[in-house]
Parts: sequence; C-alpha cells; structure tokens
Amino acid sequence: MAKIGFIGLGIMGNPMAGHLIKGGHTLFLYSRRGVPDGLLSQGATACSSPSQVARSADLIVTMLPDTKDVEQVLFGENGVAQGLEDAGVGAGLSDRKIVMDMSSISPIETRMFAARIAHFGCDYVDAPVSGGDIGARNATLTIMVGASETVFEKVKPFLELMGKTITLVGANGAGQICKIANQIIVALTIEAVGEGLLFASKAGADPLKVREALLGGFAASRVLEVHGERMIRHAFEPGFRVELHQKDLNLALSNARALGISLPTTAVVQELFNACVAHGGAKSDSSAVVQVLEKLANHQIQHSDQA
Amino acid sequence: MAKIGFIGLGIMGNPMAGHLIKGGHTLFLYSRRGVPDGLLSQGATACSSPSQVARSADLIVTMLPDTKDVEQVLFGENGVAQGLEDAGVGAGLSDRKIVMDMSSISPIETRMFAARIAHFGCDYVDAPVSGGDIGARNATLTIMVGASETVFEKVKPFLELMGKTITLVGANGAGQICKIANQIIVALTIEAVGEGLLFASKAGADPLKVREALLGGFAASRVLEVHGERMIRHAFEPGFRVELHQKDLNLALSNARALGISLPTTAVVQELFNACVAHGGAKSDSSAVVQVLEKLANHQIQHSDQA
Repeated sequence: MAKIGFIGLGIMGNPMAGHLIKGGHTLFLYSRRGVPDGLLSQGATACSSPSQVARSADLIVTMLPDTKDVEQVLFGENGVAQGLEDAGVGAGLSDRKIVMDMSSISPIETRMFAARIAHFGCDYVDAPVSGGDIGARNATLTIMVGASETVFEKVKPFLELMGKTITLVGANGAGQICKIANQIIVALTIEAVGEGLLFASKAGADPLKVREALLGGFAASRVLEVHGERMIRHAFEPGFRVELHQKDLNLALSNARALGISLPTTAVVQELFNACVAHGGAKSDSSAVVQVLEKLANHQIQHSDQA
Repeated sequence: MAKIGFIGLGIMGNPMAGHLIKGGHTLFLYSRRGVPDGLLSQGATACSSPSQVARSADLIVTMLPDTKDVEQVLFGENGVAQGLEDAGVGAGLSDRKIVMDMSSISPIETRMFAARIAHFGCDYVDAPVSGGDIGARNATLTIMVGASETVFEKVKPFLELMGKTITLVGANGAGQICKIANQIIVALTIEAVGEGLLFASKAGADPLKVREALLGGFAASRVLEVHGERMIRHAFEPGFRVELHQKDLNLALSNARALGISLPTTAVVQELFNACVAHGGAKSDSSAVVQVLEKLANHQIQHSDQA
C-alpha cells in the first residue's frame, strides 16, 4: 500500500486517481477546483495545497492541462518542490520520493523540471498518456514513459492500474517526446485520410467502399478505420478535441523550432486546425479538420446512401 | 478456359500474365519490348500488335506505365479498338469482349476510354492494383475495381488468380479513383511517420522505442510498421519507387485541380518528393522522403545502437 498524491482531478485525473484508490493505495488529493466528492467517499484525503500533497505522499502524480500549469504546481508558491524541501530527502518507495507528471507538456521544460526535482534528492518521471477520457475511465491508457529503468520499475505497478500499453521510451523527456511524435503522426494521418476520402468522394466514388478497399493494403491505419468512418458519417463529437490537438501541434512546432528541425506538413495541418477553430470547430473531434477541406472544395464527403 | 490477351509485360505484367497461364487459360501477349521467353515457353502466343491481341482474345488486359500509354495501346494505330472493330461485336465470355485496364492512370480519362470502348459493343473494367512487384509475383495484389456488377462477376475469377483483396468500388473510373486515394493516403502517412520519427530522434528519444510505443495506439498504421522501420534502418531499397509515387501524386493533383478540390498536404508532399528526386532519390523507396526532412534538419534519424 503506497501513499500516492494526485494533483489535477479533471476529466482525466479523476478516474485515474479512482483506479489507484481501487488498487488499495492511500491517496492524497489536490485540485484547484476542489476534490470531487466521489473520490473522498472512497477514502481519499483532500489536501489544501500541492506542498501538503508532497509532504504526505511518496509518489506525487500530476495531471494538468499545460506546461505552465505543471511549472506552477511543482515550483510555485506552496508547490510540490516546497513540500519536498519541507519533508527532507527520502522516505518511502525505497528511499526517494518520486514526482510523476502524466500531463502532455513540453519535453524541453520536462528535462528542466526533472533536473530541478533532482536537487531535492527526488526522482522524476514523465508519463504522458493517450487514449482520452474513455481510456482513463476504462484504465486502458497508452502510457509513454521517460525515466531511468530503476525508477520505471518502481512506478510500473501503479501505471498498470491506469493503463494497458506501458512503454519505457527512454530517459526523462522521452515520454513527452514520444507523446508529441504520436500527436504529429495522428494529426497528419487524419489529414491524409481526409484528403484521400474527399478526393474519392468528389471524383464520384463511394468513400465507404474506398475505405473498405484500402483497409486491406498499405493505406491501412487505425485512423482510416476510426476517423475515416467519422468523416464519412459526418460525426464529429469527440473523441479528441481540435483545440487539444492544436495545443499539441503547437508544442510540436515550438519544440521543433527550438531543436532546429522543420516539419512542413505538421505546419500545414496546424493551419488547417486553426481554420477549423475559426469556423467554430474547437470542441469537435480533430477528424473535423476534413470540414475545412470540404469548405475549400465546396463539396461534402457523401456515400451512396446519402447521394 | 478463357482466351485472355495481355498487353504490357513489364515487372508487373509479366508475373500477372504467368498466373493466368498457370490458371489454365490461353494467353495472347503483346509488349512493345517483346514477349518474355518465360511466358512463351509456358504455351502463350505472341502477337504482333494490340489489335491482333484484341481479335484473338475475349478478355484484353492492359498493364502499362501511364495514361498516354493506355490511350496509345487502346486507340492508336493497330490498337485494341481496331482489333475490336475487326472482330465485330460479341464472341466469348458470354457475348461481349471485355477490355480490362489494370494500369494506374487518370480516372477522368478512364471514363472516356470506357465510353469509347462501349461504342464497339464491348465492356470496360478499370482494375488498378497495389502491392508492387512482390504482390504481382505472389498473386497477393490488392485490386480496386471500377465496373458494373455484371461485368465484375465475369472478370472476378481471373482477378482472383492475380490478387487477394478484390473490391468492386463502383462504376467505371471508381477503381482508378480508389487507387489515387490509396496513393494520397500512403504518401501522406509516410510523411506523417517521417516527421514524427525525425522529431523524436532529434529531440533525443530512440525512434525504435517510439515506433514500438506508438504501434499500440491511434498512430498505428501499416506505414508506421513497414516504412517506419525502413526509415530507422535507413534502408531505402524499393518497395515502391519515389518516381512512381511522384507520378501518382501528379495524377492526384491534376485530377484534383480538374475536379475543383484542394489537397494542401498532398501538394507539400509532392514538393518533398521533387526534392528527393533532385537529390538522386528517384529509384529509392518512397519512405526516402524522410531524407529530405533530414537534410532540412541537418540531422539523421538514429536509434540507440547507432548513437
């Protein structure tokens, strides 16, 4: 039974913390918007600040919207770092406390956060997830981990309570890098499927038949399967929201600029996401980017039943 | 036992015609470069022109490089149309001769070719393939068919000798449309994987680990599996050559322009293929487009073993 802190109890964090409680662990919770009653009634303890969480727990998990939120919670006033300093080095989880950030944030900042946490004699793990709120509820998240092998082995049993495919990608930062690579590839594959299906539809073929034929060959992807079907049905309820994918491509492009690399089609797809948001699509599933292509072409994807 | 004509006996047509012979059919062959001895020794008949093929066979298959080649073979001097006219309407395959083009060419021209062939009282099928020379040799091609249902049922037994996944996509032209959609999606997914893996590598993560982690989630695709691995190994022997993929995107972009639709990232990827060719990559596998990104970034994808 470990003492686990969990900071950030939104649509993702709430069910994830719930799985840790069900796993038999003692939870110390903090959220800027207050701790959900459902978690307290399961026996978790509400804390008044991130520093109190850090003093009470041996593993401190953060699940927050963006880089600046993580920085504030870790190093701001009454933050996690303050609590680590108060607690002194060591205690629990075989000696060192561990800070594990499961948010999707910048890998460059992540490495700096890890170095700052190391100053307190503690370990850092970046473990961003994919799979969305459904994955969080069903404990089927894909988790991409940046940590040393030793620390990975320590946190693995806890990750297994929240996710299904758990991969140690490399040292600190590697989890966040992998998550960004994932978001680049998913966004660009969505655009690929959108351009392919719109072409087919406008040229007069049934996109449903085209999708079916292509799933057997090299064009096959989870995106063609899932998002392709959404495009054909014009069903854009999320899923994963355009505004979140836009945030992730922003991370991709700003990190790419800092690293000195050029991502030509990531940049174009981000522009199309911008156009999608401009047309009121911020809360739609990111497959709604095809609607921008449809506007450009003055043609909507349609299958035979609709024609 | 049907009488089948086969025109175009290159790297694809040669093994495909061989499978039809092995299927017990009588083959009449023509190729501008002469008929390969291997096919003649299996009992096929060499013809002196496409028109002779059309007079002799009930099903005439074409497998040629580009739209203009198909037009020349069908409607040029001593072409297939001439032979159909000589032969008069009907004969074999329950009455009407069938012209089946398995090349990858323009869907717009394809519809015109089908209309012109109909004037001779004959049927037309467009049945482009994917799967490359390996698929042709192993009879595992994916075949995308544009035809009426009646004619599709007539040619299906022959297609099954050459391919594995055979889909009737729609009326004439639909097979070619589907093939172009396939080439768009494959090219853009290759670029997606290239940008994702290059980002990961330059940011300091092992692309081999990243690929492994991503194959479990929404970024999963045949391209991440196959081409992603080629990029990480820097193994760019084809596969499918850049110059052919470039030709297909040219078809995509010219047809898109004619249809009045805009394919923003297809256009960017075509430009990257152009750059790839400019650097001597015409004969490389189309996953070599990542080398253009590597040049832009002044960084090569590398995994831990190489680092």
